[in-house]
Amino acid sequence: MNLPARVKIVDVGPRDGLQNEKGVVPTEAKVALIAALADAGLPVVESGSFVSPKWVPQMADTPEVLARIPRKAGVSYPVLVPNLKGLDAAEAAVGVEEIAIFGAASETFSQKNINCSIAESLDRFAPVMERAKARGWRVRGYVSCVLGCPYEGDIAPQKVAEVAAALYRMGCYEVSLGDTIGTGTPLKARRMIEAVAAEVPLEQLAAHFHDTWGQALANLLAVLEMGVSVIDSSVAGLGGCPYAKGASGNVATEDVVYLLNGLGIETGVDLDALARAGWAISSVLGRTPGSKVSQALLAKSQGPEA
Amino acid sequence: MNLPARVKIVDVGPRDGLQNEKGVVPTEAKVALIAALADAGLPVVESGSFVSPKWVPQMADTPEVLARIPRKAGVSYPVLVPNLKGLDAAEAAVGVEEIAIFGAASETFSQKNINCSIAESLDRFAPVMERAKARGWRVRGYVSCVLGCPYEGDIAPQKVAEVAAALYRMGCYEVSLGDTIGTGTPLKARRMIEAVAAEVPLEQLAAHFHDTWGQALANLLAVLEMGVSVIDSSVAGLGGCPYAKGASGNVATEDVVYLLNGLGIETGVDLDALARAGWAISSVLGRTPGSKVSQALLAKSQGPEA
Repeated sequence: MNLPARVKIVDVGPRDGLQNEKGVVPTEAKVALIAALADAGLPVVESGSFVSPKWVPQMADTPEVLARIPRKAGVSYPVLVPNLKGLDAAEAAVGVEEIAIFGAASETFSQKNINCSIAESLDRFAPVMERAKARGWRVRGYVSCVLGCPYEGDIAPQKVAEVAAALYRMGCYEVSLGDTIGTGTPLKARRMIEAVAAEVPLEQLAAHFHDTWGQALANLLAVLEMGVSVIDSSVAGLGGCPYAKGASGNVATEDVVYLLNGLGIETGVDLDALARAGWAISSVLGRTPGSKVSQALLAKSQGPEA
Repeated sequence: MNLPARVKIVDVGPRDGLQNEKGVVPTEAKVALIAALADAGLPVVESGSFVSPKWVPQMADTPEVLARIPRKAGVSYPVLVPNLKGLDAAEAAVGVEEIAIFGAASETFSQKNINCSIAESLDRFAPVMERAKARGWRVRGYVSCVLGCPYEGDIAPQKVAEVAAALYRMGCYEVSLGDTIGTGTPLKARRMIEAVAAEVPLEQLAAHFHDTWGQALANLLAVLEMGVSVIDSSVAGLGGCPYAKGASGNVATEDVVYLLNGLGIETGVDLDALARAGWAISSVLGRTPGSKVSQALLAKSQGPEA
């Protein structure tokens, strides 16, 4: 197998994971989660977003979260910023050094999700990018629906490549490719990465795969073998799929780390510490971690069944 | 990707899946499940076992199940037979044409599970094999703990190869390699298959991977790329891991079929019909199917969340 020696894992749990939670998650619990993830060795922990609290009430306390998290050297704590208003808020907040912006690879999804065309969404990001760059902030780009769209179905790899290239040319240091509805399979994932890598250097690409259809680890294996070396995942599989009730969403960081450990790929993440972070936030949410590795570790710690 | 054009799926749900159920599963429900799986296009449906009802009470009605299932042309309905006593019972039953025997790749597991050494277990199977052959029955061999043992930890691929080769030489037409505790990862899986394929033709090998640690589909992808073309799985992920409370066991057939469909590999299985079979038995068991694909299909059928 032709695998990268080291993979950077971006834990999106505290933002992408928690944003759809209906009940109030205490700021304290978010701060503890972010700190625990950094302590477990995660090099990037997405920590909040500056979107309108009208749309995403769960992220309204992002300024407070940012003010309270202990900062660990070498760890990045990016926040999502959808527009100039969000950027104003990010500038007023404490310690922002990296932001993330997002586009879709599906026109219909873009219209339904952010109420504008893909081209318009990219235009809107241009001034955000400009001001962020002027401040010396790093900007990460997300592309959604890269392996399928809930409205359009299949998405052409070339369309994904176009949007990813636009974000990259605009100045994103990394482009994260999201299988938003988790319908992708390994061959599709490879073809998509192949198309995108023709436009954006492979080292600048992240795989952000959802496990809604159980395929995330197989898809990750397929693209790891192509040399992809950045993976987005969510501790305890936080973050259901907002388009399908009851379905799971983000692949669990614990499951990804276990896979990478088995493949001999370095991540710098301590799996037991990570699992503890997942159990803690799951207990706050009153639910079992959405990670098979986490559940297996728990079962193992309880010993064989009588 | 170097993938087989066609994969044979062996659904072990009605036996391997149901055997650990504590509550009584009505014979009627078992018969309906087996019939539904055959109708969904599964070419092999493991239908019961002739082990002592003292040890596995859930399988005590195997003779009645075999008498009642509608037989579909071209479909095989193997039963597990651990010893000569079990063979007597199989001979007295209706319509047996294929049986399965099993050994472990771990000495400790063999001792704890069937109370004898690996060599002794193989010796015991010799007369079973002989009589089965005389009747013109096909015999399938299982090897457990091929990617790890709950007592010994890592298992040498060479040990797996030895046991698989012994079963093959004894006359098994196919040897199913079981990751009983689901701790395997893709590189390990490949090394194991590599070692076994040096002793037994690759076409005669089946991958029987558990999803306890969430790795089953990634492991399957890894060995499919080596040419493995027989996969054991369990509808609705039936069958928890008996060695770890609350943990999942067999990989779900629905998830495997979705993966193979995405890879363009033929199986002959109708995914929707398969999912319906899984929902039906899960409803009898009073539980949600242990298959992400099944859950995603359900969520999709209910439409997008408001």
